[in-house]
Amino acid sequence: MKIEILVSKSIKKSFFVFFIFVIPFISDAQRRPNSIISPEVLSDNSVIFRVKASNAADVKVVGTWNRRFKPDAMAKKDSVWEVKVGPLPSDMYEYDIVIDGIPLLDPLNKNATRDGGYIQSRLMVPGGLGDLIDVKSVPHGDLKAVWYDSPTIGTSQRRMFIYTPPGYDKSGKKYPVMYLLHGGGGDEEVWVSRGRANYIIDNLIASGKAEPMIVVITNGDVNNVGAVLDRTAFENKKDNTGIGAMAAGLFEKSLVKDIIPYIEGNYRVIADANHRALTGFSMGGFQTQNITNSNPSMFKYIGVMSMGLFSSARNDGSYNKEKHIAQLKELQKNNPKVYWIGMGTDDFLYKSGIELRKLYDEIGFKYIYRENIGNHDWNSWRLYLTEFAPMCFK
Amino acid sequence: MKIEILVSKSIKKSFFVFFIFVIPFISDAQRRPNSIISPEVLSDNSVIFRVKASNAADVKVVGTWNRRFKPDAMAKKDSVWEVKVGPLPSDMYEYDIVIDGIPLLDPLNKNATRDGGYIQSRLMVPGGLGDLIDVKSVPHGDLKAVWYDSPTIGTSQRRMFIYTPPGYDKSGKKYPVMYLLHGGGGDEEVWVSRGRANYIIDNLIASGKAEPMIVVITNGDVNNVGAVLDRTAFENKKDNTGIGAMAAGLFEKSLVKDIIPYIEGNYRVIADANHRALTGFSMGGFQTQNITNSNPSMFKYIGVMSMGLFSSARNDGSYNKEKHIAQLKELQKNNPKVYWIGMGTDDFLYKSGIELRKLYDEIGFKYIYRENIGNHDWNSWRLYLTEFAPMCFK
Repeated sequence: MKIEILVSKSIKKSFFVFFIFVIPFISDAQRRPNSIISPEVLSDNSVIFRVKASNAADVKVVGTWNRRFKPDAMAKKDSVWEVKVGPLPSDMYEYDIVIDGIPLLDPLNKNATRDGGYIQSRLMVPGGLGDLIDVKSVPHGDLKAVWYDSPTIGTSQRRMFIYTPPGYDKSGKKYPVMYLLHGGGGDEEVWVSRGRANYIIDNLIASGKAEPMIVVITNGDVNNVGAVLDRTAFENKKDNTGIGAMAAGLFEKSLVKDIIPYIEGNYRVIADANHRALTGFSMGGFQTQNITNSNPSMFKYIGVMSMGLFSSARNDGSYNKEKHIAQLKELQKNNPKVYWIGMGTDDFLYKSGIELRKLYDEIGFKYIYRENIGNHDWNSWRLYLTEFAPMCFK
Repeated sequence: MKIEILVSKSIKKSFFVFFIFVIPFISDAQRRPNSIISPEVLSDNSVIFRVKASNAADVKVVGTWNRRFKPDAMAKKDSVWEVKVGPLPSDMYEYDIVIDGIPLLDPLNKNATRDGGYIQSRLMVPGGLGDLIDVKSVPHGDLKAVWYDSPTIGTSQRRMFIYTPPGYDKSGKKYPVMYLLHGGGGDEEVWVSRGRANYIIDNLIASGKAEPMIVVITNGDVNNVGAVLDRTAFENKKDNTGIGAMAAGLFEKSLVKDIIPYIEGNYRVIADANHRALTGFSMGGFQTQNITNSNPSMFKYIGVMSMGLFSSARNDGSYNKEKHIAQLKELQKNNPKVYWIGMGTDDFLYKSGIELRKLYDEIGFKYIYRENIGNHDWNSWRLYLTEFAPMCFK
């Protein structure tokens, strides 16, 4: 039996155990040669990427450590391509290996995360922010995928995630709630898969930086009931109406009319503005503004990530600056305890952020502004969550 | 602005909305040219796969519709490679596109599932079994990732999924419980990601084929507390002790001592043997046998998938045939209502199945045998779940 030569003496005596436990690993090793490692994080947080591609002419790695997505070219040694990157700041990064122009998952890295249609390999670099994002040996909250009725959107069931903090089931206590929104092209799963929201909150609670809270992670894409694997395979997505439907504010209404009542009716929450937070990035930052502008007394903790004056370029006649200012003044009267704006220096919406702050300054609307050296990407959004969540419910 | 030419007239008037809602789709389209579709399921359930790979010399698709993993070679038309496969039986399939020897996800298919380190593209073919596996517009149960203490394994927290049937939260009723185990190399997430267990059970309940039940989806790999993204990135997996630890029966003990008490202490379950089912495939079928042999009065519904006489090739002296027969006789005395064995014709463990049935026949141990034309793969295991679950709790 050819495979026998691979079996160590200690397990050779037990063939059957070998077959069912070891075969998957051997099969895995054939596909992912285990003599090489990728990514390898060195003690100085440099990272070596390696990939076996004997016949390729051009191999590179493209990762979010480079904010302008400049590829790192790999060099061939025998049949293995390799490049050393960094040292990198401690963080979580997404990357592709690109072989002759075709992006693929790092075949040696089992860690992959998703946003929208992008499934990419994950790199963790420890010793700082990365440790706040990583799964640690701290008490973990539970994460529940639930289906709720959404008459506002007109579907009988939509999917969302509900994070309950460690000890929720037994404590008998009531908790504050953070509503967490994603960007265009995403769904309820992206703050879990790529955003690592539940583990970030676990770590913040464990270190005493954040209050124990419930986190509600919604799907802001009104054209789909759930993430790509959680809706019918043959569903006809109405792509032509998608943008219009999203822009029409249907999700914003459903958060207030469908989701919040569901949460407050089914979980032990403190159902008042002092114990409600709302935050989201990009499209979710737009929705956050819409929801808090239209419902000024509902949230005392508001976080707008990577999104500026949503109406700045609207020349379709629907933007009414006076109405917007009136809404902001009403919101101001309700004294939000935290109105936080996060924006990356390299964000393509950076100018819209300037316009938003200009308007807020003009009318004396109070906010906290946080600018990071960063882009319109998950490195910013995970960072923002680690900073915004600790400000809530204090 | 170069990008402007892509904007349709109807949304051109609203640039900002364009930026936050449309940019992700454009960016996606650049990566996945939207002029071509893959996979395309035709009305006769033939499937066309397409991939753009201008400079590739050899492109093929390898999918589970071929039980011997024979690749389907793709042919180049201009810069797009294409092949028509099938017609295929209605089912869910996994596949890779292989470009010049390198397997990758189908760049045009956003649906990918995972087992162990294998992330592969998903194909759904409708009209039969595929419809039982797909997410349908039926009431959905909730799916909760929970962390439980496992003193038996010696870790303070391990992760599992708990499916509660539609209506659980409000019904006040008590439910039966199925414990669902995975194979070697897997974890608690694989019956969700690739196995689609929660949607299969949703569909079976909705059609009246299965009783409403709780399903507990565990992690049988005692060396890891959870799935690859749900454990510390820098955890040192003790690969050398892994097989030994798995074979030592620690998981089996923890299911009985840690997991079942957790479920019965925290959920509304009918806590007796008539309302407990246990099933699993491959390593999970081995564990199912171990657990039910050692705890003969605990489960009345037992499903052994793709696993035969686990001890047949054990020549390490630990196998005791007399003890095994005594255990089986004790189990028989407890009158399991269903003892079901599923095996594929092409399974590499097929012979072990013959040996198991031979032993059972020798001692008059009653079982139901289901043989499918299939392999040691998810096409068999999903099928088995659709057949075993309806037999439980009736």
